[in-house]
Amino acid sequence: VEPLVRELRGRVGGEAERFVHLGATSQDVMDTAAMLVTRRALDLVLGDLDRVARACGELAEAHRSTPMAGRTVLQHAVPTTFGLKAAGWLVETTDARRTLRRIRSDGLAAQLGGAAGTLSALGSDGIRLLELFAAEVDLPCPVLPWHTNRVRVAELGGALAVVAGAASRVALDIVLLAQTEVAEVAEPGGGSSTMPHKRNPSGATLARASARLAGGHASVLLGSLEQEHERAAGAWQAEWEALSGALAYTGGALDALAGALEGLEVDAARMRSNLDATGGLVAAERVALLLAERLGRQAAHDAVGEAARRTATGLSFREALLTDPRLGLSEVEVDAALDPTTYLGSAEALVDRALLHAREGTSG
Amino acid sequence: VEPLVRELRGRVGGEAERFVHLGATSQDVMDTAAMLVTRRALDLVLGDLDRVARACGELAEAHRSTPMAGRTVLQHAVPTTFGLKAAGWLVETTDARRTLRRIRSDGLAAQLGGAAGTLSALGSDGIRLLELFAAEVDLPCPVLPWHTNRVRVAELGGALAVVAGAASRVALDIVLLAQTEVAEVAEPGGGSSTMPHKRNPSGATLARASARLAGGHASVLLGSLEQEHERAAGAWQAEWEALSGALAYTGGALDALAGALEGLEVDAARMRSNLDATGGLVAAERVALLLAERLGRQAAHDAVGEAARRTATGLSFREALLTDPRLGLSEVEVDAALDPTTYLGSAEALVDRALLHAREGTSG
Amino acid sequence: VEPLVRELRGRVGGEAERFVHLGATSQDVMDTAAMLVTRRALDLVLGDLDRVARACGELAEAHRSTPMAGRTVLQHAVPTTFGLKAAGWLVETTDARRTLRRIRSDGLAAQLGGAAGTLSALGSDGIRLLELFAAEVDLPCPVLPWHTNRVRVAELGGALAVVAGAASRVALDIVLLAQTEVAEVAEPGGGSSTMPHKRNPSGATLARASARLAGGHASVLLGSLEQEHERAAGAWQAEWEALSGALAYTGGALDALAGALEGLEVDAARMRSNLDATGGLVAAERVALLLAERLGRQAAHDAVGEAARRTATGLSFREALLTDPRLGLSEVEVDAALDPTTYLGSAEALVDRALLHAREGTSG
Amino acid sequence: VEPLVRELRGRVGGEAERFVHLGATSQDVMDTAAMLVTRRALDLVLGDLDRVARACGELAEAHRSTPMAGRTVLQHAVPTTFGLKAAGWLVETTDARRTLRRIRSDGLAAQLGGAAGTLSALGSDGIRLLELFAAEVDLPCPVLPWHTNRVRVAELGGALAVVAGAASRVALDIVLLAQTEVAEVAEPGGGSSTMPHKRNPSGATLARASARLAGGHASVLLGSLEQEHERAAGAWQAEWEALSGALAYTGGALDALAGALEGLEVDAARMRSNLDATGGLVAAERVALLLAERLGRQAAHDAVGEAARRTATGLSFREALLTDPRLGLSEVEVDAALDPTTYLGSAEALVDRALLHAREGTSG
Repeated sequence: VEPLVRELRGRVGGEAERFVHLGATSQDVMDTAAMLVTRRALDLVLGDLDRVARACGELAEAHRSTPMAGRTVLQHAVPTTFGLKAAGWLVETTDARRTLRRIRSDGLAAQLGGAAGTLSALGSDGIRLLELFAAEVDLPCPVLPWHTNRVRVAELGGALAVVAGAASRVALDIVLLAQTEVAEVAEPGGGSSTMPHKRNPSGATLARASARLAGGHASVLLGSLEQEHERAAGAWQAEWEALSGALAYTGGALDALAGALEGLEVDAARMRSNLDATGGLVAAERVALLLAERLGRQAAHDAVGEAARRTATGLSFREALLTDPRLGLSEVEVDAALDPTTYLGSAEALVDRALLHAREGTSG
Repeated sequence: VEPLVRELRGRVGGEAERFVHLGATSQDVMDTAAMLVTRRALDLVLGDLDRVARACGELAEAHRSTPMAGRTVLQHAVPTTFGLKAAGWLVETTDARRTLRRIRSDGLAAQLGGAAGTLSALGSDGIRLLELFAAEVDLPCPVLPWHTNRVRVAELGGALAVVAGAASRVALDIVLLAQTEVAEVAEPGGGSSTMPHKRNPSGATLARASARLAGGHASVLLGSLEQEHERAAGAWQAEWEALSGALAYTGGALDALAGALEGLEVDAARMRSNLDATGGLVAAERVALLLAERLGRQAAHDAVGEAARRTATGLSFREALLTDPRLGLSEVEVDAALDPTTYLGSAEALVDRALLHAREGTSG
Repeated sequence: VEPLVRELRGRVGGEAERFVHLGATSQDVMDTAAMLVTRRALDLVLGDLDRVARACGELAEAHRSTPMAGRTVLQHAVPTTFGLKAAGWLVETTDARRTLRRIRSDGLAAQLGGAAGTLSALGSDGIRLLELFAAEVDLPCPVLPWHTNRVRVAELGGALAVVAGAASRVALDIVLLAQTEVAEVAEPGGGSSTMPHKRNPSGATLARASARLAGGHASVLLGSLEQEHERAAGAWQAEWEALSGALAYTGGALDALAGALEGLEVDAARMRSNLDATGGLVAAERVALLLAERLGRQAAHDAVGEAARRTATGLSFREALLTDPRLGLSEVEVDAALDPTTYLGSAEALVDRALLHAREGTSG
Repeated sequence: VEPLVRELRGRVGGEAERFVHLGATSQDVMDTAAMLVTRRALDLVLGDLDRVARACGELAEAHRSTPMAGRTVLQHAVPTTFGLKAAGWLVETTDARRTLRRIRSDGLAAQLGGAAGTLSALGSDGIRLLELFAAEVDLPCPVLPWHTNRVRVAELGGALAVVAGAASRVALDIVLLAQTEVAEVAEPGGGSSTMPHKRNPSGATLARASARLAGGHASVLLGSLEQEHERAAGAWQAEWEALSGALAYTGGALDALAGALEGLEVDAARMRSNLDATGGLVAAERVALLLAERLGRQAAHDAVGEAARRTATGLSFREALLTDPRLGLSEVEVDAALDPTTYLGSAEALVDRALLHAREGTSG
């Protein structure tokens, strides 16, 4: 800060020169600068978040009714739609965006406190000057100088960690769906120098890497609240680097993710064939519900479990159900029950609900 | 969850038995329970935060004009008042409380999604049932089931880390002020088994220890956003323990801190004598401002620095100033300039501002 | 500590009573106890690590030559063997174990320093008593009392984080291999209350959850080195809880992982069919190497890439290669090149190397 | 990596051109480069650690018998010597150095595995080539390619975090000793732009700031063990940045700390006057021990506590002891007991022990 002040004094010159930096301390300059830089960076980050949300919204709308396997603990559970998966990404993104927007609009602040936060060198006009200064740099005016009250910096760190983590979640889903054996989505491009056939999910990979680095920087900000007296001996001085890093890598994660989503190739046919690959097991819950009405819940559960186990011998699940006389299921019943495309629950209505909510959130 | 469901079915019996847990998955039960437990715990945590804020407010009011040394990088800088220090604690506490209150009022949510978040077993009435369930447990209804959208849990972790960190900052100030050489505050009690004369800042120490543990748990929550598909294989299962720990240790930190603040013994006379111990050096900034009008800013800064260095030889700062003929300062001028109690800047007005803000924040 | 000392004094009675806790401070008792507890816990953790290593070694040996797809960025890359994958787990486990063993054998220490680490109440015999005490509790004797030198605790935290992270890596591989679409391994058991057909990788999931919690606790230990003067005000007091947690959850992760590995069902046929599912693309690198000798490296790379892209139209990779006249490849050449089972590189020799190394490491 | 390989091929040309990068993958190049960069950086870091250790050793030797207050929970406890404090820093530094040296000498490794770690493109000579390559770059040869076994990177992160934390502990002690009210040490330089009289502990402050940033980077390395299959999708890609940061900021912390220690001004007179400032209370433990022989331990403890409390009324501790008839202490006894300079326990012998150990550690 010192060389900057000297340079500025030289340029100002004359009578006004002695008012340059008057009543301010280096931290006033650094913190205000950090807030201005943050505001500009948040606009970029929020812009990237909007891109991600828009891409998720478009995927949700386009694939509202595209059936795919819902997977829990990475196992097929019951059918869902790719639209609902994308709607889940959308809601997570907009949830994460909300806090960041709030910080952008009222969580930043000008900093002016002088040597120890009393506005000592500004006579009796200190608070008025603080307010004028805040207005001049167009930042909210803080209640008090905040030299060692770092709640706003820590909350910013937390919000960036959440945004980066949300981006990482979407990216992980892409990576998992792009696996050779799953192959339900692909990123455009993504070649390999040694293996010309590969199509790596490069954007999602970069998003995950950037999100990790953002999280590391954010942890420094969240861990720096404990600052001594009226200016810290170390914790404050570490903030600038960590804040820059958290902003840059969160932005990087979102940009990479947005690119991946915008070009995402979705293979609905493969989603369908993966869904069918287990011969109806993905609808086993529906069979159990159907049988529960007849046999009671526990017996139904056990019977379906036994039929599922019999598929290990090569029998289809359909056959296993039909050949168990205790179940008394007809072919028509079984075929209806095992059709995954009619067992989507409220998936489509939930997509509509998420899209409606996102539109309202954007306008609100 | 399974034994609980079995027990409940047994108790319900009859026709209704088959509707117990129908359409729900274990995670629905666990997440909703976690939110209910969190709500109850947040009320305790917010209550402790109120205690801390109240105690800080009372100290700020009582010591609005009690002069003490403002310290930057742990060195005397310029005078401040103990009231302004306590007001700083108050503002930090209320800043940290704001996000937690927001989460308490609209950041929690009921969880109901069924096997993979499609409400598969609930037919066409899924969303309506989700809304009724949320109303029944008196939690906000989520846009979508949030089995792998953990933004609310991560934000809760972040908010608890901020509250714990803010508590730790206040506690650190108490520890520093209670040092044998500073002795400006003391906690009641605090004996030692081996050294009967000691008065340890036990509450502040416990607050800092608890805050560290809270931060460790919160980092697990903030690091758990990346969850796979429709249910995670590990990250979700770690949340319960981390959430309990973050809530408990944040509460513990606040309770210990509140105890320390409520009984805090403030030694205004010692604050004054510490302020005077450097023979006026703590007002050196004012002397430099005074001289700047006569000698220009850089020359004034250098002259004061030189006078300060001469104190190393045993000369008082007052003498050093008076005996430098270039400065042309009279005894009256020097004595006025070096009186720390008249160089408080806007400290008292800032205390009023913080108290006003806190009162509005509480009613708002 | 105080009630313990009182109780002990009562039991000892007589002349000896006044020597109970003489010259010791509470931290001496707590730290020595923590080291004794740690030693016992490390024996359990090391035992679980041995179980994991043994299970990995057996899998490596049994599947030394079982071909499977090697996957980079979760895409098929080139063939490997399941034995080499398990050997990689083995080497990682034994790498992680090495530091923990070292800490177990010489990284712990007795603690005895008295009030401020000078052995003040022990007259001129302090150091001799420190040595006798260390011998009595059978712990290494430290160079100095280590009340605020927490390197050994932080290194323990780091080593536990590494072990937990290594366990988590193996567990993640199991989760990924157990996916419905991959299905190359399965854990025994692992049913679901709502979906009777599911076989969740429960042990691996629990291992990953426990490892996350271990990491959270370890981060507290690693972050607690900065301690004040001769006894800290907060950082030390947080250690006990974090150390217990780090030990318990690391042990939990290893136990869950060992269970998963010991019962792991490996489906070599499925590994083979997954390897074949891409019609030889997994051996594309070998084709590129073969062509490079004829066409030069870049041209070969481009040609193989083009052939790979043509498979998107339904053509097999084999056909695509055979029908490109520029390549001049015969059927015999192509069939030989595309056989994944003959493109294992040094996989089997590497398994032998890892097993040999592990055996030496165990005896050494 | 790709442009680098192209450039290199161009330069090599001719027959040899096709062997450039043959059988290697990008990660082989990056990881080996990271290890070579790390080795060079570790030499700098270890050099800075040696500087710190040397400076601590010199302070320990020079102030072996300089009495000062031992402080626990930041309260005067019993006397120690500044030499023992510095010896504690020395032992902590050399403890932290040990693991880093071990990693420098045998914890790094060459990386060569090819596409998926099987050395697929190197025919039957893969392992031999791996060994030759490791010898060529003069790095230890790994048991297996370690594309997703990141134990060595995580351990490096942990070791750097420990070194940075140890540096931060010493720096904190300096900051605390340099406080205006304590003033037992001062760093040379350290002026302030607004307050010409200040002497900030700038080196220690910078060391603490750098150590925090090092810790943030290290946490990314420690959290990146969970990597997928034969190459990770994100965790590996984040390592380079985090590793560079951890090395650079650990080095920065040590360099700043070394500078602070090498120029440290130690004020033995001030140490003595601080020790005396409590009128003998710092030797209260000795009085309690003396009385315990006559009154029993509990009664002695209570009596000393009562005398200590009476000092709050303005009475000196000496007077309080002499005027309590139950104690039966003579003036000679009290004066002897209260002399802090004769109550140093084994402080001086412990300094010798630490210096001896450090010398052996250096030569060993």
